[in-house]
Amino acid sequence: MSFQNPVFIPGPTNMPEALRQACYMPTIDHRSPVFGKILHPCLDGVRKVLRSESAKIFIFPSTGTGGWETALTNTLSPGDGVLAARNGMFSHRWIDMCQRHGLDVTVVEAAWGEGIPADRYEEILRADTAHEIKVVLATHNETATGVRSDIAAVRRALDAAGHPALLFVDGVSSIASMEFRFDDWGVDIAVTGSQKGFMLPAGLAILGFSDKAMKAVETARLPRTFFDVRDMMKGYAANAFPYTPPVGLMNGLKLSLDMLLEEGLDEVHARHHRIAEGVRRAVGAWGLELCAVSPDLYSDTVTAVRTPEGHDATDIVTVAAERYGMAFGVGLGEVAGKVFRIGHLGSLTDAMMLSGLGVAEMVMVDLGLPITLGSGVAAAQEHYRHGKAAPAEAAA
Amino acid sequence: MSFQNPVFIPGPTNMPEALRQACYMPTIDHRSPVFGKILHPCLDGVRKVLRSESAKIFIFPSTGTGGWETALTNTLSPGDGVLAARNGMFSHRWIDMCQRHGLDVTVVEAAWGEGIPADRYEEILRADTAHEIKVVLATHNETATGVRSDIAAVRRALDAAGHPALLFVDGVSSIASMEFRFDDWGVDIAVTGSQKGFMLPAGLAILGFSDKAMKAVETARLPRTFFDVRDMMKGYAANAFPYTPPVGLMNGLKLSLDMLLEEGLDEVHARHHRIAEGVRRAVGAWGLELCAVSPDLYSDTVTAVRTPEGHDATDIVTVAAERYGMAFGVGLGEVAGKVFRIGHLGSLTDAMMLSGLGVAEMVMVDLGLPITLGSGVAAAQEHYRHGKAAPAEAAA
Amino acid sequence: MSFQNPVFIPGPTNMPEALRQACYMPTIDHRSPVFGKILHPCLDGVRKVLRSESAKIFIFPSTGTGGWETALTNTLSPGDGVLAARNGMFSHRWIDMCQRHGLDVTVVEAAWGEGIPADRYEEILRADTAHEIKVVLATHNETATGVRSDIAAVRRALDAAGHPALLFVDGVSSIASMEFRFDDWGVDIAVTGSQKGFMLPAGLAILGFSDKAMKAVETARLPRTFFDVRDMMKGYAANAFPYTPPVGLMNGLKLSLDMLLEEGLDEVHARHHRIAEGVRRAVGAWGLELCAVSPDLYSDTVTAVRTPEGHDATDIVTVAAERYGMAFGVGLGEVAGKVFRIGHLGSLTDAMMLSGLGVAEMVMVDLGLPITLGSGVAAAQEHYRHGKAAPAEAAA
Amino acid sequence: MSFQNPVFIPGPTNMPEALRQACYMPTIDHRSPVFGKILHPCLDGVRKVLRSESAKIFIFPSTGTGGWETALTNTLSPGDGVLAARNGMFSHRWIDMCQRHGLDVTVVEAAWGEGIPADRYEEILRADTAHEIKVVLATHNETATGVRSDIAAVRRALDAAGHPALLFVDGVSSIASMEFRFDDWGVDIAVTGSQKGFMLPAGLAILGFSDKAMKAVETARLPRTFFDVRDMMKGYAANAFPYTPPVGLMNGLKLSLDMLLEEGLDEVHARHHRIAEGVRRAVGAWGLELCAVSPDLYSDTVTAVRTPEGHDATDIVTVAAERYGMAFGVGLGEVAGKVFRIGHLGSLTDAMMLSGLGVAEMVMVDLGLPITLGSGVAAAQEHYRHGKAAPAEAAA
Repeated sequence: MSFQNPVFIPGPTNMPEALRQACYMPTIDHRSPVFGKILHPCLDGVRKVLRSESAKIFIFPSTGTGGWETALTNTLSPGDGVLAARNGMFSHRWIDMCQRHGLDVTVVEAAWGEGIPADRYEEILRADTAHEIKVVLATHNETATGVRSDIAAVRRALDAAGHPALLFVDGVSSIASMEFRFDDWGVDIAVTGSQKGFMLPAGLAILGFSDKAMKAVETARLPRTFFDVRDMMKGYAANAFPYTPPVGLMNGLKLSLDMLLEEGLDEVHARHHRIAEGVRRAVGAWGLELCAVSPDLYSDTVTAVRTPEGHDATDIVTVAAERYGMAFGVGLGEVAGKVFRIGHLGSLTDAMMLSGLGVAEMVMVDLGLPITLGSGVAAAQEHYRHGKAAPAEAAA
Repeated sequence: MSFQNPVFIPGPTNMPEALRQACYMPTIDHRSPVFGKILHPCLDGVRKVLRSESAKIFIFPSTGTGGWETALTNTLSPGDGVLAARNGMFSHRWIDMCQRHGLDVTVVEAAWGEGIPADRYEEILRADTAHEIKVVLATHNETATGVRSDIAAVRRALDAAGHPALLFVDGVSSIASMEFRFDDWGVDIAVTGSQKGFMLPAGLAILGFSDKAMKAVETARLPRTFFDVRDMMKGYAANAFPYTPPVGLMNGLKLSLDMLLEEGLDEVHARHHRIAEGVRRAVGAWGLELCAVSPDLYSDTVTAVRTPEGHDATDIVTVAAERYGMAFGVGLGEVAGKVFRIGHLGSLTDAMMLSGLGVAEMVMVDLGLPITLGSGVAAAQEHYRHGKAAPAEAAA
Repeated sequence: MSFQNPVFIPGPTNMPEALRQACYMPTIDHRSPVFGKILHPCLDGVRKVLRSESAKIFIFPSTGTGGWETALTNTLSPGDGVLAARNGMFSHRWIDMCQRHGLDVTVVEAAWGEGIPADRYEEILRADTAHEIKVVLATHNETATGVRSDIAAVRRALDAAGHPALLFVDGVSSIASMEFRFDDWGVDIAVTGSQKGFMLPAGLAILGFSDKAMKAVETARLPRTFFDVRDMMKGYAANAFPYTPPVGLMNGLKLSLDMLLEEGLDEVHARHHRIAEGVRRAVGAWGLELCAVSPDLYSDTVTAVRTPEGHDATDIVTVAAERYGMAFGVGLGEVAGKVFRIGHLGSLTDAMMLSGLGVAEMVMVDLGLPITLGSGVAAAQEHYRHGKAAPAEAAA
Repeated sequence: MSFQNPVFIPGPTNMPEALRQACYMPTIDHRSPVFGKILHPCLDGVRKVLRSESAKIFIFPSTGTGGWETALTNTLSPGDGVLAARNGMFSHRWIDMCQRHGLDVTVVEAAWGEGIPADRYEEILRADTAHEIKVVLATHNETATGVRSDIAAVRRALDAAGHPALLFVDGVSSIASMEFRFDDWGVDIAVTGSQKGFMLPAGLAILGFSDKAMKAVETARLPRTFFDVRDMMKGYAANAFPYTPPVGLMNGLKLSLDMLLEEGLDEVHARHHRIAEGVRRAVGAWGLELCAVSPDLYSDTVTAVRTPEGHDATDIVTVAAERYGMAFGVGLGEVAGKVFRIGHLGSLTDAMMLSGLGVAEMVMVDLGLPITLGSGVAAAQEHYRHGKAAPAEAAA
């Protein structure tokens, strides 16, 4: 295994040295007060990253998928109604989970590349006068298509319909990288993981619950034990977990939060935006199209690039790995073979991004795509040069 | 945080340097073939450690508790009967989980310090002529009391009763440290975690399923997605997980398995026995009693020591931590304040154990217990000296 | 300190993760047999990298400069004659050391950018009929100018003159990266360090001595103790050093040698050549000139690039560091301000190199040099694409 | 290689996790300003540890032996007189180095186990009316015998004799562990290394020079380049070294100094004293004798224990390593086979020390020495228990 090149998968991301070292901690007694000094800064820091004053934060030794299951099983009962849009593989999987847990999902189909149709949500919610829909799901950033949906618009749809459903947001590939406003957007549960914006290994599901979500916990009848937030709350109050906590990873999270908050969330978002915009300019210079259908949907953490007819996008990922030792993401589900994905989140510099774009160009030329070597790199360089001079403007 | 002293909690254990480094791996693309070269050796190695020819192995980014939930939700349906003994905190928690998942548990109460009463199991199973009991639970090693139960005897009880129930064994604090015979004992699901005998950080639930258990998966109706072994099987077939795998931890597990199998399971068990027996001789020299009521129940991974009347066992743990920077385990539940626990599993040497015993002695003298300094250490030294000379005999 | 970007200084190089971990070893008893298992593979492996059958290898806790001093003080006496060429900062410093140690140096001045003038060496040696010149110094790769001299030609000069002087070669920035033939070239002492081709931190001086050099040790009267190879030899025979050895670094060296020899020296050299050639094509595309005056002198480990009149080359290094977090090398001595240096040795990939070239382009455009963004990257990409397809050819 | 047990050699010591991580740093550009932020805190911190206001501090990529050579070659000329006492292997080696560098050494022989005879020094200095003795050497802590000499007394001898010689002190195994007063004792050069009290790997020679020593540099004619403090001074002024600096080790030193100064030098010394005193009480309980002949000479960093007639002390070290995986130090030179050495410096706890004493007891009983198991441990425990309660008193 060579670890020389950075990875450009949409998570897990490249990890800063200091975070790896923080995770790589010898064993401590997780029942001692020392653990509390790791746990509570994690809870407080995540709350800040969510831009929430009062969200209850939960951290499970799991992944984003476990986070979704935590959200559902702690707040819902068999047969409860759920409203969800399907516009990519990850929103699809969340819907699938709901169905497997016996929930009654109203699915709004959207093209892969489109965002969440907030207007359709509003129509459906208005029509649900019996309030059988208990929860509205929204995938903030569809990692499969590089589409960022407008969560504020989803909240407005709920409000416009005067509907009391809870709003659950999958922020796995957005939180800590792109603007996320738990309180302002009226989010009830936000779900994320350790391996994206937090720049850590996979292994933590991280959630924020609003007071309204916590209230729903009291009556939810879906069975859960491992993911039960009530046990967690009791545990946290005693500086503990209801079972063995992943101490090293949480020690890493504590440092990750320090790093993010010291850099400043605005600056972190601006950095992601600048790097992402450079990638998009490169794609433009290549004459290729994004999977995301309009600029307002462009994700700052992952770009899904459509390949021309006759070119299997998966080959790009394979050749990049085999010939150049570089990892990109394949297309998933409906867009398999049609897109390849460039992850650009977490610990990343302009310089690293240029190496990713440079390799992508070599691979595409190797595979016969009508690309000019250096063209995308030049477009990104032009953007990065100015971005560096005026980071605040770049983030606008 | 000082990491100088070894820990003597019953898991997570001290970690060998090489394992920490293996876990501390930069990011790779978990969808690339590289991941398969970590995954499959893990599955094969765990099977060997379980001494099974054909068990299906599953690894989840979770903990032992998640492993229990995996066992239950993948094989049972609401209302199914479960037979379980309660003889400590961990067997208690598994029963609690069953009840929260709507299972109908027949609980056999045993004193904390006793083993599983296999004869009672046999009576109950004989009486269950309708075979409403679908699963028999057995906690191999009760970490709370330092009691190892006889799983072969539980199997004989099932066989004697001619009962078709599945046998699920919690081997969290026994597997990879003490003899465990999945095939010989007719175990249907074995559950363990990364942070005990495997000497890794917490973060992996590790399970083996028999063919009979896999058959039960087909009809089980308890809801599960994150813990669904069907998704895992599909994933493994494609060198993947159904979600982001904990690559670093699994890279550590791969090396841990190499280390265990190279040392030899018999030798690993003998080493644990030798070190544990030294601890027990120290306890004898102190004039104290074990929580485990008879020698056939003594655990080789954790020793729970009863303190004399008038001495709160929890104080020992507190003073050891505060004054000497050393971690022991407190008593839990019914035995809180009555026992303290000395963990002696995983990566441990005779020399390290002497430092644990030496500190325990200082603390007990500090707290006024009628202990002679050096007495327990001397008893352990006497044992370790001979153990080294004849490891095979020591393990008998 | 951010460690995200690779460095492009001409050493210390980027370090592979595995080497850093090998160096990062807990303390062992350096007087135990364990140390011998690190020491002897190091000695054997270095000999192989030097392509020597019988050179005596010495490793000191020092740097290349200490290696030079080892060479001089172990073989020479005050007033002894030395012949040396000065064609850059590092050859200059070796001459300065000779003078400070009371040696009588005949200096052949060459332009910075030229190689060693072997013909001038021959003339001088022929004229030295009294054989007052005891040692001929040759800097294989002038790190300051990116010039590789022809050591075989220096040997031929000695032979043609029938002169018995010893041949000492500074291979600090060539050995383990570029072809080096200790035996074939009749080298008597080769000097290198840990921080270049061996991809380790600075801290080891590494030397090979021929039998003829070892013979000179017996009569040399320059004082030395720390650097005395006689004490080292005695030490090695007992698996020891005459003082505390740098165990971790040597453990790293052992692994580095395994890695280099497993890849194959020819392949290692070809890789360096391919990457270097890409850099040179980029420089050509930029319309800039190398410091090295002709292609036969081009170094495969470092490229010194001349900047146009009116542009201070040092600014490029400063802006790259401050604005883009990337390290290049400044010009030293006579070429300070006139060249900047791109290191491309050790642990490096084509992809990493593209990021270095991409940043260099941004910086040069920022500073007003008449460079087209992407032009150098494209030239390197074109070369790397074909190099990958036919590595053997690329190395020719 | 197992790294589970602590080592009890008299350096290199056990390394705190945080220091190893600090050393284990990716490559930075050592010519960038970043290096200055590592260098200058090192220089300032070492000065504080030496308790000096104005000593010039030098750090070389070398070892203590290189430090000695630095001291001699920078201040002396061939034929200069040196006064030194030989009372162990390390003082012997320094004398040997002087002789190999052509210095005229007046050797005061002392029994191995005795301290420096300051009264003999005074006699000799008084007799040297021509002031041919330029330097007085003093080994503060003879690592071979566990003897700490009284440097203040050596200073008083110089002063009483009214002799202008410089005072050079080998503090390799004392500085940062035991009281050292550069200014108060009128030390002119102090020499130490990274691998003892600083708890780092071997690889740094660390020196302090008084103004008087710096003055001697100007006229010294012993040849030196690598170890030339004038080049170093010039380098430091530009945030640089005259050659490649050992950046990672120095980053470790920076953190080590922070740790030592945060704990407080008095507390560090008291901790060493407490642990050492426990070891001495153990030796007393075993009925064995120290090599050091009187309590005022007892070293707080290493204890050399004499074995009874008929017992080869080296066997103890061999059996400890082979049977119990624990490293002690053998006797060297005159006391080879007669003493074994227990190192107790650097990163060490009472608990760790108990494991060392416990293993030593097992080994001695294995080898037939008339030792009672647990006896030494008990004596140390008794001391450590009270030491913890009153650390200030324990250090008195």
